[in-house]
Amino acid sequence: MTSEIKDWKAVAKEKRDAITASIPSEWHISNIPSAADQRDVTGKFIQQYLNEKEVEITETDAVGIAKKTKTGQWKAVDVTKAFCHRAALAHQLVSCLHETFFDAAIKDAQILDDYYATHNRPVGPLHGIPISLKDQFHVKDVETTMGYVGWIGTFEGKKGTNKEKVFESEMVRELRNLGAVLYCKTSVPHTLMAGETANNIIGYTWNPKNRNLACGGSSGGEGALIGLRGSPLGFGTDIGGSIRIPAAFNGLFGLRPSSGRLPYEGMANSMDGQNSVLSVVGPLGTSIGGLRLATKALLSQQPWLHDPLVHEIPWRDDQEKEIIDLVGSMGHGHKLTFGVLKHDGTVTPHPPVRRAMDIVAKTMERLGHEVIEWQHPVPSERFTKVIGKIWTFDGGHDVANAFSLSGEQVAEAIVVNTSPTEQANASEIAATNVVKRDLQKEYLERWNSTKELTSTGRPIDAILSPAAPFAAARPSLYTYLGYSVWVNFFDYTSVVVPVTNVDKSVDQAIEGYQPLNDIDKKTYECYNAELYDGAPVSIQVVGRRLQEEKMLALAEYISNEIHKN
Amino acid sequence: MTSEIKDWKAVAKEKRDAITASIPSEWHISNIPSAADQRDVTGKFIQQYLNEKEVEITETDAVGIAKKTKTGQWKAVDVTKAFCHRAALAHQLVSCLHETFFDAAIKDAQILDDYYATHNRPVGPLHGIPISLKDQFHVKDVETTMGYVGWIGTFEGKKGTNKEKVFESEMVRELRNLGAVLYCKTSVPHTLMAGETANNIIGYTWNPKNRNLACGGSSGGEGALIGLRGSPLGFGTDIGGSIRIPAAFNGLFGLRPSSGRLPYEGMANSMDGQNSVLSVVGPLGTSIGGLRLATKALLSQQPWLHDPLVHEIPWRDDQEKEIIDLVGSMGHGHKLTFGVLKHDGTVTPHPPVRRAMDIVAKTMERLGHEVIEWQHPVPSERFTKVIGKIWTFDGGHDVANAFSLSGEQVAEAIVVNTSPTEQANASEIAATNVVKRDLQKEYLERWNSTKELTSTGRPIDAILSPAAPFAAARPSLYTYLGYSVWVNFFDYTSVVVPVTNVDKSVDQAIEGYQPLNDIDKKTYECYNAELYDGAPVSIQVVGRRLQEEKMLALAEYISNEIHKN
Repeated sequence: MTSEIKDWKAVAKEKRDAITASIPSEWHISNIPSAADQRDVTGKFIQQYLNEKEVEITETDAVGIAKKTKTGQWKAVDVTKAFCHRAALAHQLVSCLHETFFDAAIKDAQILDDYYATHNRPVGPLHGIPISLKDQFHVKDVETTMGYVGWIGTFEGKKGTNKEKVFESEMVRELRNLGAVLYCKTSVPHTLMAGETANNIIGYTWNPKNRNLACGGSSGGEGALIGLRGSPLGFGTDIGGSIRIPAAFNGLFGLRPSSGRLPYEGMANSMDGQNSVLSVVGPLGTSIGGLRLATKALLSQQPWLHDPLVHEIPWRDDQEKEIIDLVGSMGHGHKLTFGVLKHDGTVTPHPPVRRAMDIVAKTMERLGHEVIEWQHPVPSERFTKVIGKIWTFDGGHDVANAFSLSGEQVAEAIVVNTSPTEQANASEIAATNVVKRDLQKEYLERWNSTKELTSTGRPIDAILSPAAPFAAARPSLYTYLGYSVWVNFFDYTSVVVPVTNVDKSVDQAIEGYQPLNDIDKKTYECYNAELYDGAPVSIQVVGRRLQEEKMLALAEYISNEIHKN
Repeated sequence: MTSEIKDWKAVAKEKRDAITASIPSEWHISNIPSAADQRDVTGKFIQQYLNEKEVEITETDAVGIAKKTKTGQWKAVDVTKAFCHRAALAHQLVSCLHETFFDAAIKDAQILDDYYATHNRPVGPLHGIPISLKDQFHVKDVETTMGYVGWIGTFEGKKGTNKEKVFESEMVRELRNLGAVLYCKTSVPHTLMAGETANNIIGYTWNPKNRNLACGGSSGGEGALIGLRGSPLGFGTDIGGSIRIPAAFNGLFGLRPSSGRLPYEGMANSMDGQNSVLSVVGPLGTSIGGLRLATKALLSQQPWLHDPLVHEIPWRDDQEKEIIDLVGSMGHGHKLTFGVLKHDGTVTPHPPVRRAMDIVAKTMERLGHEVIEWQHPVPSERFTKVIGKIWTFDGGHDVANAFSLSGEQVAEAIVVNTSPTEQANASEIAATNVVKRDLQKEYLERWNSTKELTSTGRPIDAILSPAAPFAAARPSLYTYLGYSVWVNFFDYTSVVVPVTNVDKSVDQAIEGYQPLNDIDKKTYECYNAELYDGAPVSIQVVGRRLQEEKMLALAEYISNEIHKN
């Protein structure tokens, strides 16, 4: 037993050291101040380690980068090097990387530059844009551990598959086709089932804007890395909030598409094959423009020809235009209508989240749009219980198996059961699927019925909702997932929009607050204005299934308007 | 025990008699000859009971009917009465109905006629078209038994739900919106898991073109009814061939769309909630035009707003036009390319099916199209085994439960286990889903790779395949489902096209035939040219997922060309 424990710790340390060693020594930094001394390591703090050009490049969003790289104004190699450098710094500050492959990236970038030099045109719409990937993507010559010590030196825990460091996920192939440069893979909580990011390899990924807090999860490394501008754009996955939570906690934009829109084919996953609630893959980034660029580019690759679960729905300009036309013709009797979910009936959002929701709702009202109070048609427990059941259909068998490979201990933040219990059987699973479908139908019809409430005669265009009850979670205190999982349960499209930052001078306790239940009380008690000060506060814009074009357009409009103030 | 057995037999007989009693006495016929004396009861045989106008109306396809009803040339009431009459005859000849609601239909038709008289325009694109429904659809004031004696007087086997004879399936609502007239529900094998149609209520539904043979299943009542022109168009469902088999056996067109295209919401089903291979709903009819009309009309209702499992993919004219343009510009270097699956490696199609495949392939070649030999990329056992496993995930629990409600005996034709055995657990189901997804990916890539084999540089446009190894099955001898289930396994789009009829003078034994295995031998031995003479022989045109527009266009082109000969 002792030797086994020593074993996994040693293996984890070896991997951890290898990640650090993969960073060129000239990029190493030391004497990093404590969180108490330096809460926020973004902006000026991280800039001190970079030259002016590197700062300019890395603080440009994906659309801005594409403009330069696709016209030859910036070399892909220079852009890549700048992001490799900043990513290396980010990792040292908040522990957000599982894999770096900077040399391969620079080599790939050189090929792009050569192509441009020869043909005077870019390889594709993502020419020379560095893109970071959550450590579920398989990339050749690179390991995938998903945070499991037992996966080190294997392919998804298995040895001798001949796929180790050779096999690439479908989206990786497409991103390369499009001209993107892949250079690092980012940290995740092992099991992927957590709203924060911790594992025995890299430890804990902190929120770079406020190192008292979690960076979110499970695409937490993406959130932290992009939050530090160590990447302009990255891909995460979401089965309960795992794209949106890190986007929200780090002041980023994030798209959770509906299932079947973007290709998940060939990625590592937890409980792979559970198909009652599918995990989806989507982009996080520093601008909506970047999310749109990446989504549109991927759809141009016809992923439905290579991923059997992707539906043949190309990018729909007309759907985007519908929103643009609506807001463009405001004052001519046209307007948007929103449902606003201020409280889901179970857990009271923290003061800064309430304020962010108010900012958005009031901005929309001020502009002449219509905002109606929204309540889920059924108590949130109804679907949070069902999704919890779905996540544990296998009684924790899959993740327990992954842990048993090394004997490693389980991180505190993990929300699924990891000691195997009884599995659900086929009848129970089928019955759960029927309950889920019935609730989905009920939600759809409630949404349809809002056309009776709006002055436009259309059902509401979107629901504005918190992405979490808090600006960011405190370590091991992710008390409630209800504000993110409802979107997964109903398979809706959602875009996270950063709104403001916690301001201890205004975001004080809620006057007359009375706990509704134990989770509500526990969640409320996590709030501490002093501790939270400075953390990003975001909301999500939620549309029906497969409304990616419309929700991106809406989120962009909302974001532009709230940041005009 | 004896009393219980007596009970279900009595209850079944009561229901059976009620169906007969629901037919107006002036439409009753007697002295129906035996199959030995009168094999074929279609065409002239059934016409003897109808007047000239009724024959004209009922032998017009849905598109032709729409032309008349939508311009006021035919009254909806007259059309409805004619089809009610012919359906009543059909039921007496081959036992194909579970429910009739002729009075309600005539009343609905009168409302349509009144609407037309007042507004001088049709209610919708299906104005006045009688549409038959498989007995999985819930229609108000009408029972749904799905062939189970135990479901009589219940809602899906449950009492006191307040849904009995009140609740309507989503598609029923849409069909009514579109102006369709609903008038009967058609027979199914109880459990739905059979390629023929038998249950203790209506007995056995025979093939009207050759009453020695099965009408197919599980949408067998639809096949037999439309085969007798007792309906111009109907809706069935398909999880292993249940639309395509009855379409093929009765010389009809049938569309099996991919899952998520047409709304299944609110229909009764077996093993509801099993979501590894979804049953789909689709039309059967006497013309491709009719299938297109119905599909396009339903999509105009935006079913994705009312069925959470339907994807937002409106009817795509451009996809249809792609095929029309291709064949329209033949001889200008454009052509179609087909893969032809003559033999799936497991079971040898009967001589008439081989001949039908040859007719189609040779016609396409003669017209200048390209035909390449197609083989599944993996042995067919690989996916037939997996789909068999999926169908029995619950160890027969669901269907056993339905049988236990009445104690009735199980029909011989049923292919699933009905004595409950051990259920699959969550891990086994997830692992099966992964195996399925991997095979789907493999098939996709093989399909993509055909662009290296064609002269067009495009992958093959469709696969031509038998729908079954036989023209029709012999009772209780549905030996092999491999030719239909592959389409369900890969979730492909398929359209059945009738090609010819068995001709005992040419469809003789295969020279030098050697059995490949036991199933092959058993299947081959079912063939008997004398017995099969006259039976319709059909093939299916198979496209990738969600290719409904293209496959309908292709099937129409193929059908037109082969019937020019």
